[in-house]
Amino acid sequence: MTKIKHALPVTRAEDFAQWYQAVIAEAELAEESGVRGCMVIKPWGYGIWERIQKLMDERIKDAGVDNCYFPLFIPLSYFAKEADHVDGFAKEMAVVTHHRLIADGKGGLIPDPEAKLEEPLIVRPTSETVIGAAMSRWVQSWRDLPLMVNQWANVVRWEMRTRMFLRTSEFLWQEGHTAHASREDALAETLRALEMYREFAEDVLAMPVVAGEKPENERFPGAVATYSIEAMMQDGKALQAGTSHYLGTGFAEAAGIRYQDREGQQALAHTTSWGVSTRLIGGVIMTHGDDDGLRVPPAIAPHQIIILPMLRDDEGDDALLAYCEELRRALVGQSALGEPIRVLLDKRPGKATQKRWGWVKKGAPVILEIGGRDAASGQVSVLRRDRLWRADGKVDFVGQAREDYIAGAPAQIADIQASLHGQAQARYAANIKRGITTLAELAAHFAEDQRYPGWVELNWSRPTGAALDKVVEHLKGLKLTIRNTALNAAPAEGTCPFTGAAAVERIYVARAY
Amino acid sequence: MTKIKHALPVTRAEDFAQWYQAVIAEAELAEESGVRGCMVIKPWGYGIWERIQKLMDERIKDAGVDNCYFPLFIPLSYFAKEADHVDGFAKEMAVVTHHRLIADGKGGLIPDPEAKLEEPLIVRPTSETVIGAAMSRWVQSWRDLPLMVNQWANVVRWEMRTRMFLRTSEFLWQEGHTAHASREDALAETLRALEMYREFAEDVLAMPVVAGEKPENERFPGAVATYSIEAMMQDGKALQAGTSHYLGTGFAEAAGIRYQDREGQQALAHTTSWGVSTRLIGGVIMTHGDDDGLRVPPAIAPHQIIILPMLRDDEGDDALLAYCEELRRALVGQSALGEPIRVLLDKRPGKATQKRWGWVKKGAPVILEIGGRDAASGQVSVLRRDRLWRADGKVDFVGQAREDYIAGAPAQIADIQASLHGQAQARYAANIKRGITTLAELAAHFAEDQRYPGWVELNWSRPTGAALDKVVEHLKGLKLTIRNTALNAAPAEGTCPFTGAAAVERIYVARAY
Repeated sequence: MTKIKHALPVTRAEDFAQWYQAVIAEAELAEESGVRGCMVIKPWGYGIWERIQKLMDERIKDAGVDNCYFPLFIPLSYFAKEADHVDGFAKEMAVVTHHRLIADGKGGLIPDPEAKLEEPLIVRPTSETVIGAAMSRWVQSWRDLPLMVNQWANVVRWEMRTRMFLRTSEFLWQEGHTAHASREDALAETLRALEMYREFAEDVLAMPVVAGEKPENERFPGAVATYSIEAMMQDGKALQAGTSHYLGTGFAEAAGIRYQDREGQQALAHTTSWGVSTRLIGGVIMTHGDDDGLRVPPAIAPHQIIILPMLRDDEGDDALLAYCEELRRALVGQSALGEPIRVLLDKRPGKATQKRWGWVKKGAPVILEIGGRDAASGQVSVLRRDRLWRADGKVDFVGQAREDYIAGAPAQIADIQASLHGQAQARYAANIKRGITTLAELAAHFAEDQRYPGWVELNWSRPTGAALDKVVEHLKGLKLTIRNTALNAAPAEGTCPFTGAAAVERIYVARAY
Repeated sequence: MTKIKHALPVTRAEDFAQWYQAVIAEAELAEESGVRGCMVIKPWGYGIWERIQKLMDERIKDAGVDNCYFPLFIPLSYFAKEADHVDGFAKEMAVVTHHRLIADGKGGLIPDPEAKLEEPLIVRPTSETVIGAAMSRWVQSWRDLPLMVNQWANVVRWEMRTRMFLRTSEFLWQEGHTAHASREDALAETLRALEMYREFAEDVLAMPVVAGEKPENERFPGAVATYSIEAMMQDGKALQAGTSHYLGTGFAEAAGIRYQDREGQQALAHTTSWGVSTRLIGGVIMTHGDDDGLRVPPAIAPHQIIILPMLRDDEGDDALLAYCEELRRALVGQSALGEPIRVLLDKRPGKATQKRWGWVKKGAPVILEIGGRDAASGQVSVLRRDRLWRADGKVDFVGQAREDYIAGAPAQIADIQASLHGQAQARYAANIKRGITTLAELAAHFAEDQRYPGWVELNWSRPTGAALDKVVEHLKGLKLTIRNTALNAAPAEGTCPFTGAAAVERIYVARAY
């Protein structure tokens, strides 16, 4: 077999963590900003986020949820209230203490001691408290329920070790917050949001996920139940890609979200919250990237087709560009995956080969290279990013008559979307280990020499409290965590390897990001 | 003439400032958040902002500008660098000094003294410095220019006196930042952005504006030239509704944005920045609102047509709803102002009259009230928000055959957009005073008993430095400011009333927000 010279300086097999950073750099998705823990999201990375936003926002609106905007700053006292009723209250947050800078007399600037805030402000790590305060004003009667709002916003959680898209101090997300009259309604909304995320991950991101409930120890602090979608990365690790929480009445009590029910009695609302973030882009990279860079699922590709004219700086260029422009127009007049096809005619100066490899690394789904001869003979040369190499080690360009290509473009785009999902689905299905019944087998499966251990599905007796702590501690020794219990899992049989008690459900155990 | 009972508790004539707050409250646009200087933008207000974002974003992208995302936090040292080269450096900013909270031992929380940041972080008031740092990494050669990026983001400027949408500590905006090889290119981009804003204000917001250059004393600190669009509010005051700055090479020097030119020499880039914010919504309110609430121009109305079925909780409701749903489908299948018509079928419980007045106050362009008899006879009852009252003091509903209404709906929506612009344009044109040649006349025009003084166009000799300071001081005594010099002004004649020197251009002088 021919040795292929891949476009990235490091392959997944050589060093997965370095490969991840290389994709982000070479695909020009993002870079370190010079500000601790914060990244700059570059046009191609932000374009992917804009696609995610658009398609998720449509789903959120279709569910009857209204977009709003709530303050960046949350008064410290709101957290004191929350700290009272929330055990695992997280404290790593950015604290604003001053509102002015003054010269320090040595050519520098310092926070003005005269401008110290009476009450510090916290940069929102999430908005339950401040949205809860608004809901307490907006909800009076059962007629005001359900109240369902969402915001697209930046949030900050101080992180000591950061990794671009996966764990940054500032990140972008949407946070849905809803209030309901009953436990049933709130739980139904929690599961609706979870199903929205599952469908989005599969259909839009082409990323197989398990939707299920997190164990007690992984619940959002203060939540009654936390659900997640978990995706399998190409190194076998799990990525929590979205969460949905049923918060019971605890947050409503802290914020004072009370309503008069149909019988005229005061009652506490049941609330939920749910979110996905720029972390999804990290998931897309580690699900679809290969040793030549990113492969963007067509549904979220800012451009689905790149037209690359092979310009020669001569008199033939005009005819070539006219041919390419006509091609572009024919393509954007068609729809694929339910939207007009997105096409870029890349007229930038520079060598066509260099530009080609730039787009390969960025993962544009289709690249069309058009030379003068193609233009003269009505041909196009088509490269599918999901089928980059031929068996002989050459790049797999396929020549086609222009009209044939145009007619087939919508189906080809849909096929690439399906093909990326199919590849990820096959890898996912092949790497879930079942049938392990003892802790010794579990340890052996995840032993150091196991290159690609994937996930393990285990019987589970659902221990709580100290018994659960013991399990978590044991797993920690193996660098493992419980991911979730799939909603659609088959009924459990046999005993739980941790407790020896009868299993009541199954859990996924994995290494995780 | 019949006395009309208006929907708002206060009219514009009674108290313009209170009327403004009443519109915001009654139209459910926004409310105070409980967090100093920050507002909660509610669904109808945020929906208007989403429309503004969508239509502005299309224009920004069409100009070849790429969206990115840059950090919320800016290290203090970046500002020290800027303070060096910028005289009017603004210092009212939110300063992050700690990254953790701990319990104070008395049931509260305090910033952890152990978690003090080595270098404070500033919550971005604008992003020239941090984007300049990125540009210095991205720009190497003349081939990298122009570099044009934009971000949609929240920014914070500590404000002592806040007013919703007009001046809040946190606000939402877009900020465009570009780097160019030459002064000419950068100035052309500055003016392109200005023209984009002017066209947007007129065509989308139906808000007449003057596009022009700000005087030296009103320049963005460090800018070589600042341009603005200025809109006239219904109380005659001016609102700066968007700015575009040519920054020369000063910011490039501070940030190190250097490139190798075609001759192989190192050169400094010329940069620009330009932005509009949620302040535009304040402009829309004070341009189009009336004593019954807001009137939203159809181009930015989240819903252009509200269908209000007059439900009676009886067996006739099903047929009525079916009729309304069919009407909705017929309407959304058509386009107005270049986009599919946006229609809401409002099925919420509650009295139809109460719901009607809710939508009147929100300013939905068209309200259709449909009763059982309308449904039976194929009629609709149409209310245009721009023609709310009949001469007899009754609400101006017009009965129409369903098919006729549907066929005319696109034109009617376009007509409402034009009508709102026409009304604002007439008011604007009628309230610019020309021909004032002395300072005494100017003072008389703006004397206290002048209810609606509008703007004054004056001859201007373009004094600078101390001479300009004197003018600014004099105007301040009259509570006036120089707004801008219109780009399309007629050539100046005569002398400047401030300096007595020959006029070289004309300026607008007004009270302002």
